[in-house]
Amino acid sequence: MTLKLDYESVQAAARRIEPFINRTPVITSEKLDAIAGCSLFFKCENLQKAGAFKSRGAVNAVMSLGTSALAKGVATHSSGNHGAALARAAGLRNSAAYIVVPNNAKQVKQDAIRSYGGEVILCEPTLEAREARLKEVVQDTGATFVHPYEQDEIIAGQGTAALEFVQQVDELDVVVVPVGGGGLLAGSSLVAAFEGIRIIGAEPEGADDAFRSLETGQLVLSHTPNTICDGLLTTVGTRNFAIIRNSVDQVLLASDREVIDAMSLIWTRTKMVVEPSSAITLATVLRNPALFKRKRVGLVLTGGNVDLTNLPF
Amino acid sequence: MTLKLDYESVQAAARRIEPFINRTPVITSEKLDAIAGCSLFFKCENLQKAGAFKSRGAVNAVMSLGTSALAKGVATHSSGNHGAALARAAGLRNSAAYIVVPNNAKQVKQDAIRSYGGEVILCEPTLEAREARLKEVVQDTGATFVHPYEQDEIIAGQGTAALEFVQQVDELDVVVVPVGGGGLLAGSSLVAAFEGIRIIGAEPEGADDAFRSLETGQLVLSHTPNTICDGLLTTVGTRNFAIIRNSVDQVLLASDREVIDAMSLIWTRTKMVVEPSSAITLATVLRNPALFKRKRVGLVLTGGNVDLTNLPF
Repeated sequence: MTLKLDYESVQAAARRIEPFINRTPVITSEKLDAIAGCSLFFKCENLQKAGAFKSRGAVNAVMSLGTSALAKGVATHSSGNHGAALARAAGLRNSAAYIVVPNNAKQVKQDAIRSYGGEVILCEPTLEAREARLKEVVQDTGATFVHPYEQDEIIAGQGTAALEFVQQVDELDVVVVPVGGGGLLAGSSLVAAFEGIRIIGAEPEGADDAFRSLETGQLVLSHTPNTICDGLLTTVGTRNFAIIRNSVDQVLLASDREVIDAMSLIWTRTKMVVEPSSAITLATVLRNPALFKRKRVGLVLTGGNVDLTNLPF
Repeated sequence: MTLKLDYESVQAAARRIEPFINRTPVITSEKLDAIAGCSLFFKCENLQKAGAFKSRGAVNAVMSLGTSALAKGVATHSSGNHGAALARAAGLRNSAAYIVVPNNAKQVKQDAIRSYGGEVILCEPTLEAREARLKEVVQDTGATFVHPYEQDEIIAGQGTAALEFVQQVDELDVVVVPVGGGGLLAGSSLVAAFEGIRIIGAEPEGADDAFRSLETGQLVLSHTPNTICDGLLTTVGTRNFAIIRNSVDQVLLASDREVIDAMSLIWTRTKMVVEPSSAITLATVLRNPALFKRKRVGLVLTGGNVDLTNLPF
């Protein structure tokens, strides 16, 4: 872990990953603006490599490793997008990727990991089982553990989504990003603080640890999540919370019903396939119209990896 | 009807409609290229205004009308995208739009027409009933009939999709477009002929009138369509057939099962919401790998208006 993590760390990450990721488009919809009562700008990280913003952090982490480390591969535990992103990033350097996946993870996400050449290692769906299995894998292979969210290269890498966003859209008043482990929110908040833009986290009611942590000032270390937003099940990491409590204005909540309605609106109006964990952003905006009224509001659509045979509509 | 319809007609249409439509992006997918064995370029008309390429022809037709005609409004019969596109185009000139819609048309398409300020006039779901009701509406209101596909302004307008496409992608070998009434195929074939690019129509097995017409040289005037591709139910128009038989290489068929599989691939790999009538293009390419092997293949994704509560996956 580097000692310093700031706006310049995000700029450095952007330069490092630029050849290997997509500069994703920003789209708008007049119809959605009319519904929301504000100007919405959607940053399409669902069109990112491997289908999610996670490619940013994963590429930054892999490209920061030396040759000897890469020769032994990388490893992580992930229920989905980080695993696929890390597998793809490792493949760019011909490095192996060992991805510990809970055995209840969606098939589409397991398939994605394998399609990028990653090795899927199934485990029981508890945090303890994931960490124990990962520890074994690291001991057996000598692979470098790349944390899904609690690592500076990951935080800086995810922050590049916000950096691009403010380059693409002038005078944003506020940026709303989903919060699970908090890597994207922490990285984005470094950019927002530098630019003087408000930043708000969006979290499902059924996994409201960031909301409660920010309210009480005490980091919630574990919970029993129950939400359709399968990318937002983890609790915020210690490192991320230290950043978030300094530079994030607030965390807003939405119900799964509101998330599904927002997801339907995004699909219908923007023609973009997005995950529930992305739609949480629009759901919180629609729930709090007074807060966003007539503002220029940036929403990060974090990913588009859904199982088409099991949609919530 | 103008006497002449050629490449220059399409260029003129492009200039006329440019302020009122989207220059839609072209996207690619390495994964889909690997599956198809060729280089695929997708022209995203699902991101077009009103969610379909139909906005091109509709805007061209409306912008070609004089003030006195516009004061009385425009009218058409449509099961969907043309109706919404015409309603939107008329609204741009503060003109009324009367859209005769079969009472079995999907709710999502009726809602779209109304959302653009069009008046939905329901009728029985037969061609006779549609034409009879339209005739009444035109007599009552004095509105100008804008045909969904069999009118030169419409054909030239739809052809602008292909014109943009060849400007955006160098050295396309072949362009594949869906064929229903044939307006898009006819308009695109004018561009392809000028550019020396092969052009192929894609049609569902359950509505194969263009295929049979081209095979026999005799225009099939009516049929009983049975396909999931709800935008491709009509038979090819006389005017379109005259153009198509001159400049279109062939029409390829695909089954509904193949369309659904192709649609799933497009959604999963490109994160684009497209209609079955769009996915027919990829379905025909995947069915005929030898024909497209290692070629640069342009596919027009014609629209993205689907009912999320009734998906075929």
